[in-house]
Amino acid sequence: MTPVERAEAAYDRIESADRPEIWIHLRPRHEVLAEAAGIDPGLPLAGLVAAVKDNIDVAGLHTSAGAPSYAYLPRCDAPAVARLRAAGALVLGKTNLDQFATGLVGTRSPYGAVRNAWDPARVSGGSSSGSAVAVALGIADIALGTDTAGSGRVPAALNGIVGVKPTKGLVPVTGVVPACYTLDCVTVFARDLRLARTAAEIVEGPDPADPLSRTGTQLPPPPARPKVAVPAPEHLEGMADGWREAFDAAVARLAGTGVEIVETDVTPLLEAAQLLYGGAFVAERYAAVGEHLDKHRDLIGTDLDPTVAAIVLAGREKTAVDWAADTARLAALGAAARTALDGCAALLTPTTTWHPTLDEVAADRVGANARMGRFTNFANLLDYASLAVPAGSVDGLPFGVMLTGPAFSDRALAALAERFADPGLDLFVVGAHLTGQPLNAQLVQAGGTLVGPARTAGNYRLHALATEPAKPGLVRVAQGGPDTGTGPHGDTGAEDGSGIEGEIWRLPAAGFGALTAAVPAPLAIGTVELADGRHISGFLVEPYAVEGAPDITRYGGWRAYLASP
Amino acid sequence: MTPVERAEAAYDRIESADRPEIWIHLRPRHEVLAEAAGIDPGLPLAGLVAAVKDNIDVAGLHTSAGAPSYAYLPRCDAPAVARLRAAGALVLGKTNLDQFATGLVGTRSPYGAVRNAWDPARVSGGSSSGSAVAVALGIADIALGTDTAGSGRVPAALNGIVGVKPTKGLVPVTGVVPACYTLDCVTVFARDLRLARTAAEIVEGPDPADPLSRTGTQLPPPPARPKVAVPAPEHLEGMADGWREAFDAAVARLAGTGVEIVETDVTPLLEAAQLLYGGAFVAERYAAVGEHLDKHRDLIGTDLDPTVAAIVLAGREKTAVDWAADTARLAALGAAARTALDGCAALLTPTTTWHPTLDEVAADRVGANARMGRFTNFANLLDYASLAVPAGSVDGLPFGVMLTGPAFSDRALAALAERFADPGLDLFVVGAHLTGQPLNAQLVQAGGTLVGPARTAGNYRLHALATEPAKPGLVRVAQGGPDTGTGPHGDTGAEDGSGIEGEIWRLPAAGFGALTAAVPAPLAIGTVELADGRHISGFLVEPYAVEGAPDITRYGGWRAYLASP
Repeated sequence: MTPVERAEAAYDRIESADRPEIWIHLRPRHEVLAEAAGIDPGLPLAGLVAAVKDNIDVAGLHTSAGAPSYAYLPRCDAPAVARLRAAGALVLGKTNLDQFATGLVGTRSPYGAVRNAWDPARVSGGSSSGSAVAVALGIADIALGTDTAGSGRVPAALNGIVGVKPTKGLVPVTGVVPACYTLDCVTVFARDLRLARTAAEIVEGPDPADPLSRTGTQLPPPPARPKVAVPAPEHLEGMADGWREAFDAAVARLAGTGVEIVETDVTPLLEAAQLLYGGAFVAERYAAVGEHLDKHRDLIGTDLDPTVAAIVLAGREKTAVDWAADTARLAALGAAARTALDGCAALLTPTTTWHPTLDEVAADRVGANARMGRFTNFANLLDYASLAVPAGSVDGLPFGVMLTGPAFSDRALAALAERFADPGLDLFVVGAHLTGQPLNAQLVQAGGTLVGPARTAGNYRLHALATEPAKPGLVRVAQGGPDTGTGPHGDTGAEDGSGIEGEIWRLPAAGFGALTAAVPAPLAIGTVELADGRHISGFLVEPYAVEGAPDITRYGGWRAYLASP
Repeated sequence: MTPVERAEAAYDRIESADRPEIWIHLRPRHEVLAEAAGIDPGLPLAGLVAAVKDNIDVAGLHTSAGAPSYAYLPRCDAPAVARLRAAGALVLGKTNLDQFATGLVGTRSPYGAVRNAWDPARVSGGSSSGSAVAVALGIADIALGTDTAGSGRVPAALNGIVGVKPTKGLVPVTGVVPACYTLDCVTVFARDLRLARTAAEIVEGPDPADPLSRTGTQLPPPPARPKVAVPAPEHLEGMADGWREAFDAAVARLAGTGVEIVETDVTPLLEAAQLLYGGAFVAERYAAVGEHLDKHRDLIGTDLDPTVAAIVLAGREKTAVDWAADTARLAALGAAARTALDGCAALLTPTTTWHPTLDEVAADRVGANARMGRFTNFANLLDYASLAVPAGSVDGLPFGVMLTGPAFSDRALAALAERFADPGLDLFVVGAHLTGQPLNAQLVQAGGTLVGPARTAGNYRLHALATEPAKPGLVRVAQGGPDTGTGPHGDTGAEDGSGIEGEIWRLPAAGFGALTAAVPAPLAIGTVELADGRHISGFLVEPYAVEGAPDITRYGGWRAYLASP
């Protein structure tokens, strides 16, 4: 699609979706179409449309942070917005949010509660509610959010999309209304991981105007067989019905790609999470917008959300001594968390713990919200990067998991998430790659795990090739022999095939690809029919190489042949 | 000296020095002598004695932090102490300090004001007063201090010794009474830089019990011609008489070693310094010991120092919102400081600004103290490493300067300080190393700077050698010719010498050494007599190489010979 066609489609989708609460300001269709006509089609994001949370400046559009009384008109794009635009993305408008980015529900806004993309009776999650739903409904390809407690991840999970919360300081917070100034991150939503990461890397980069902007070397990608921590079972209690099972399935899926799962006591992380709203750090929220709330107390209940106002104004009551004590406590919890996660490439958790209806949140505005931040609230306090990805569904609604790691693990988390999205490819091996044979290490290094033994259908013959190390060559013939399935040492006619013993290994797609590319002639990776009727990838041999090579079909497999006198 | 001899000498020196206020607890002589007898003489610090500031735990000795009412009996050595002892150092006892490490004067202690090592009418500086004076008087070889505002550097300067303030987190603060928990550092005093650095590297290292303990890669050593920032002149106003001149001399000395001096606007650093006591961060002092002060208000004026108590108790009045605002301000100042120091290997400043008498401090306890922290207060707030070294004297009292750089610049600062202690070695060159000649770059790479042109005495002859690149060989002969001093193209007899033109270059000792080691035969570095009578190092040639080499003495120098038709 051209930029103009994509913009047209976005406005059509906005109409058909009928979710006006997504937008605090939607740019006029003609204005965006005119801008689309001027986009250089060679730019990396050309032809993509973006939505921007309304606590991030877009030049010429008011920034309200969800409070009409707070709105101001910025003259410059925030760097994150400017970088998206410079890469060719079109900004459709400014999206609704929990006011002052204080909330994980998406209902704390005088512009209306943002309804979930999949079930309008349920919350969208917040605070980046409008941005997440705009992406989930296919209106926008990319959206910018922010994340202090989990605002860039919880709504990703509840709407079935990807949410990237970069390492603090990688994306400048210049032109962003602070929630907790030292903890805020600009985040990226997209429907798939690759686009989310592309956009995140485009908006990352230093900014001299942002004192907290920082650069650093990304940690190396995880090894082929990484360890990933998961919370001990007791820390997974109290989730919504079916969520524990969905999480267990996600863990099993990751384990199936060769990841070693390590059950971990995450108590220090959960205790750190409590400090975000339960301690003195909430004073940062007062430092950010407290004066505005103090000045406009008459607007609480109309323009200003009462729940948000109560949280922010309470920050004024905390003492600096409280802050000092909380800082010391956080340092101790951070050290304990490092110890708990030592040796692990990441922590895998559910992104949130339940998916309430709008009514459930209305009935318990603080409590319902607090349950949602269990696995997200600690990340910025402990200087972690985090990545929320979809992981199936429960009762027809999206379920999401999150990979969390130390600062500058952004790319390593993405590599793990790709692996998570990649359930692995099966490969049938019959010779030097079998367990215990000389080339088996290649499978292990490629991240492979043994699925188990298997046998070909009866129409194969095996030859001993003159290679170094010694390898067999598997060749399919026209028909099975009379003794198909009888196993080794059966006596087969020269033209008939037989079942050949081997093993199935499961490899990550990238490892599978690298292994295939490195297979030397005369071997090849093709399709092998198994005795149970399945067709899976496996080692074959080019016909020229078996001419004159001893036929060892009668042994029934390479190991039996090697063991023969 | 054996450990026993050294311990004997220490106790003798304690007696002759007659400064009982150094010690809060001095171990009995016999006990230390018995311990000395068991020291393995092969240990790196064997035969050295140490003093420990009384806010750092030594197993079995009370830790008072300068307040008798606060004292407790630790069962374990702090890791810094344990590491010194494991390396063979003997601990003599616990030293006096500004109570709760709150002060830069050394007078805020019920155990008495610690008098300066050089002038007992003046302050020692603090808060690590007893530790610094014990080292300056030769009682201890090494002493541990702590540094939050400058407590490990100011007393080093005022007593003429070296003070190492490592990067925060390199030395564990386990077993240390906190002053400002997130800002405290354990520091090392010694009379010379090498021992100070050796001891600092011995006490550094991670500690699982210290949540703020951290490791990191040291920055690379500074280049041969580093840039070093110095404060703009207006930031050096208001120092004691003669101190500005002493600092200028120190700057000139460093510049003479090939360092490029960059006058820098250090306003952001000085403003950050104000936040340490002028803002909310003082609440960390209350978080540390405020409850003790609150409980024992009746002891203020006797056991508890009134000035310290007033500072700590005021911390209780600050709000968490103040803290949040100060944190944001500090982040902005830190970014501005990074910009100001961009490209510089370090900042060179005076360590402190004056050296008051005990009476002057008594007359203005807070104001006199505040003047002392001008160049030290910002280091821990901005996560800098810092190193205080002696730099001559003013009116018979020590004057000190300080090198300050980013976290993990500890070793780079030490390399700069060594250079500072090394005024450079002069080398006379006459040929391919002259400015503009092919090997001149070797001098520049070795950190050399051109001192200026010079001429040999009249008893030298110059020969053109058959080397590649072409070089001359300088040979001293028995006597000067009749035209000594007449310059190029003078007509000299074959046996008489002449003055030969060349240049003097000044190189850091290490660069000089490396250059000399790389000089190829037949050249050599020996001594050359100059026309002005000085004898300095210079290039000579072995006699075998000038046999048959054209004598070019009559040109008066290599450049004139090269320019000849």
